[in-house]
Amino acid sequence: MNKYKQTAVASKDFEEMVKRAVEELKPFFQPKSIAVIGASHDVNSPGWVVFKQLIEYHRKGLLKAKVYGVNIKGGELFGEKLYKGITDIPDDIDLAVIIIPARFVPRAMEDCGKKKVRCAIIISAGFSEIGNTELEEEVKRIAEKYHIRVMGPNCLGVYDAISYVDTLFVPQFKQLEGKDVLSLPRPKLGPILFYSQSGALGAAVLDYMYGEEIGISKFVSVGNKMDIDEVDTLLWAKEDPHVRVVMMYIEGLKAERARLFVEVAREFVKHKPLVILKGGKGGAAAARAVMSHTASMAGAWRVYEAAFRQIGAIIADDLLKMLDAAKALAFQPPAAGKRIAIVTNGGGAGVLATDAAEAIGLEVPAPSEKVLNEFRKAQKEKLIVEFATFSNPFDLTGSATDDSYLAAIDIVMKSPEFDAVLVIGLHHVPTLSDKFVDKICKLIRKYKKPVVAVDIGGAEYAKYVRARFDDYGIPAFPTPERGIYALWSLVKYGQTLKKLGVFDEYIKKWKHVEVRQ
Amino acid sequence: MNKYKQTAVASKDFEEMVKRAVEELKPFFQPKSIAVIGASHDVNSPGWVVFKQLIEYHRKGLLKAKVYGVNIKGGELFGEKLYKGITDIPDDIDLAVIIIPARFVPRAMEDCGKKKVRCAIIISAGFSEIGNTELEEEVKRIAEKYHIRVMGPNCLGVYDAISYVDTLFVPQFKQLEGKDVLSLPRPKLGPILFYSQSGALGAAVLDYMYGEEIGISKFVSVGNKMDIDEVDTLLWAKEDPHVRVVMMYIEGLKAERARLFVEVAREFVKHKPLVILKGGKGGAAAARAVMSHTASMAGAWRVYEAAFRQIGAIIADDLLKMLDAAKALAFQPPAAGKRIAIVTNGGGAGVLATDAAEAIGLEVPAPSEKVLNEFRKAQKEKLIVEFATFSNPFDLTGSATDDSYLAAIDIVMKSPEFDAVLVIGLHHVPTLSDKFVDKICKLIRKYKKPVVAVDIGGAEYAKYVRARFDDYGIPAFPTPERGIYALWSLVKYGQTLKKLGVFDEYIKKWKHVEVRQ
Repeated sequence: MNKYKQTAVASKDFEEMVKRAVEELKPFFQPKSIAVIGASHDVNSPGWVVFKQLIEYHRKGLLKAKVYGVNIKGGELFGEKLYKGITDIPDDIDLAVIIIPARFVPRAMEDCGKKKVRCAIIISAGFSEIGNTELEEEVKRIAEKYHIRVMGPNCLGVYDAISYVDTLFVPQFKQLEGKDVLSLPRPKLGPILFYSQSGALGAAVLDYMYGEEIGISKFVSVGNKMDIDEVDTLLWAKEDPHVRVVMMYIEGLKAERARLFVEVAREFVKHKPLVILKGGKGGAAAARAVMSHTASMAGAWRVYEAAFRQIGAIIADDLLKMLDAAKALAFQPPAAGKRIAIVTNGGGAGVLATDAAEAIGLEVPAPSEKVLNEFRKAQKEKLIVEFATFSNPFDLTGSATDDSYLAAIDIVMKSPEFDAVLVIGLHHVPTLSDKFVDKICKLIRKYKKPVVAVDIGGAEYAKYVRARFDDYGIPAFPTPERGIYALWSLVKYGQTLKKLGVFDEYIKKWKHVEVRQ
Repeated sequence: MNKYKQTAVASKDFEEMVKRAVEELKPFFQPKSIAVIGASHDVNSPGWVVFKQLIEYHRKGLLKAKVYGVNIKGGELFGEKLYKGITDIPDDIDLAVIIIPARFVPRAMEDCGKKKVRCAIIISAGFSEIGNTELEEEVKRIAEKYHIRVMGPNCLGVYDAISYVDTLFVPQFKQLEGKDVLSLPRPKLGPILFYSQSGALGAAVLDYMYGEEIGISKFVSVGNKMDIDEVDTLLWAKEDPHVRVVMMYIEGLKAERARLFVEVAREFVKHKPLVILKGGKGGAAAARAVMSHTASMAGAWRVYEAAFRQIGAIIADDLLKMLDAAKALAFQPPAAGKRIAIVTNGGGAGVLATDAAEAIGLEVPAPSEKVLNEFRKAQKEKLIVEFATFSNPFDLTGSATDDSYLAAIDIVMKSPEFDAVLVIGLHHVPTLSDKFVDKICKLIRKYKKPVVAVDIGGAEYAKYVRARFDDYGIPAFPTPERGIYALWSLVKYGQTLKKLGVFDEYIKKWKHVEVRQ
């Protein structure tokens, strides 16, 4: 259905492919009008949930697209007329959301074709994932005949935090002891595109991101990948101004798309970072698990790993690392090298950060005499206390003030001896003021050297401190080791850009995100 | 000062040492009367903070011990008379908390000796940690002369969640935009003893535990370890009925205590699990970091690692793992082997759990025909849906109900094929009721096979689900990989107990914690 589907991409073709993707996939993310085929009166049905939330978003003015309901029985729902077929709708439709039993999907797709629908999200399950490959093939033939781009089947579809296209059919609220409690929240707006081969896992991760206050631009759940897959998502993400990083959960690539994926991804990472969590890495049990889940071949993990490395993707070992790396890459520039400085007011936290840094291959070099002298000068000026130690970690001690941090951070940010900085600011001490974060973030943002922050704690003050760092685009984490991993991902991406010869160009264009205050 | 200080312990001496420790250290945790030497009018001083919180705890009836303030100037504070010297107090004192400039500490200790004080927490800094080893030696000589057991100097001392001894001098609240905000909370009551060689890190971890709702029995911060150290803490913890697991942050053992520690710890783990996070594992930078922090020798990580393995301690790689392991070991029995079953309603989450399990050396075996038949039977009885897969992970699919889980969990708990179980219950689906956790926990608690739960998410419902699991003593985690690590710690401890030949005896005595509802 697309010329480039079977073609391996040369660098010069990449931009052409991006252009086509932006044009063809636009209705998934910015439709003019949506038809929900399977809008249902049954409050327990996905068709009810999806139609309701789209109508509500539209009425609130969040979703620009007009929303039409289709139900073979006709009638009315939420005060809206239900059409017996999509062809009855007296308006052009560019996005169809299909939520009806699998056997009726071919017929619905034929109607979509006649209606000149450009994109369809087929939420319905019951296709190749349970062995009904013929039915899926039939739908595919119809899609190709009418040039309809298809997401799914057997997927959650899209959540777009900007346009409010939202086909997640799992209810946002759930009853708990007679009360409606937030069960599947949507994360706040942010610069991450999250692609998931698993719908349930994807939804759960959205819930997790909500809790960690990690923002999202788009969520894409592709199910059986009849058409839209990793390749299309990257092509779209390349141009999307609201996407600064792509985060992917992949169980397996389709054999016929693997080579194209590698080529497209290799071009993509010149522009934006890509974080991949691969499900199905292990031995026999992992292979069984993946086979019974998405019928992907997981046995070839070494092959995948080699490909992902070749691409220059950040390969995350687990869910938390995927999120931490994406958060760092969304907000901070890549590092020019792997030499980090650790500034801390807690010796133990500095020790743990150093352990983690050395374990993952970062360098924590001893400072030169020049840097030492600058620290000693700050000490003479009473900015830094007497018993502070400057061996890197730079331990400003529990008596450190806002000014101690300002002095220390300025020294290490300026010095060419360090490529990236971990700032550990344990808030508990009385000597750090409530303007601490604001002050040091303003200083940090004068540079294009990556900084990650750590404050350990789970009560109100710690949460405030980390959220405040995040607001300034300085990603903050609750343990030293997570901070170091985040910093590592920035080092890793910098290495990739250098290898590709585009680091300087990338940094020149790179900008701090706007501060939300 | 103690006979056993220089003696390597034989197994039979262990109980004798425990008995002595319980007797000698009791005033640290259950004093009859406390003197705060350095109770101060200066609201920014540690002496003010500590005296205030002890007085308040006492007035509320939480702290049974009587509290007396000592200040060389005399006077009154919080309506309490301040004594010019401890010897002026018209009452016996068994615990002294010393918070005065270092140079005055020897004199105060002499007074303590005359007053027959049994234990002293010396919070004051300015001793060996900044090179004043002579002053520390002087204090030590006085302590030995009068048989005073000493915690510190340069420490936070004790937080005991049962007796409310609390010498943490960092304020609990801190100003944020004109309001008092919780800054250093105390975690809720629970079965963990947390020992930290670093005070600041220890305090920050308490804050973190508060956020994760991990309960604590005692926190012990030992600073320079003039006397009380890892050995004494383990001896005390062995008998303490409120301690089910000990969690230690160690940067270095004193050379003269290392052998004794290994011998005592080896006895200790026959009775209770021990989790160790070692700070200073890496190369040159880690060694520098530790040297400047606690002046410990960190270069010998391989030696430490070998010793910790010999002990049978759980060696945690990072802060989060230390906490996750401790949480699991506090609530669940050790596993009889390493074969785990994974029960899930999310395929992707099951895949990630399997990857993590295989990576860490757990087995996720395919089920026997016998187990398969039991699952098929449950399927025939419509307890489990048609498209569920039973290859382990047992993927009950997103249509799984409470009854599906009850059926599946009962099969794997009964089966001798599995030594431990990971239950992944993604709450988002409408088919799981709000009684899901209660129902399956009641079933799980009929067995003595370890179970860990996972629900991914950060909004209200996910938090409720995990807290509810925790309430039942089934430790719950927000990612599959953390759940697997927790399970691994139970497997590891089971292996240790088997190696020591005490597994069966241990399991026989082991009890589920009481349910807090």
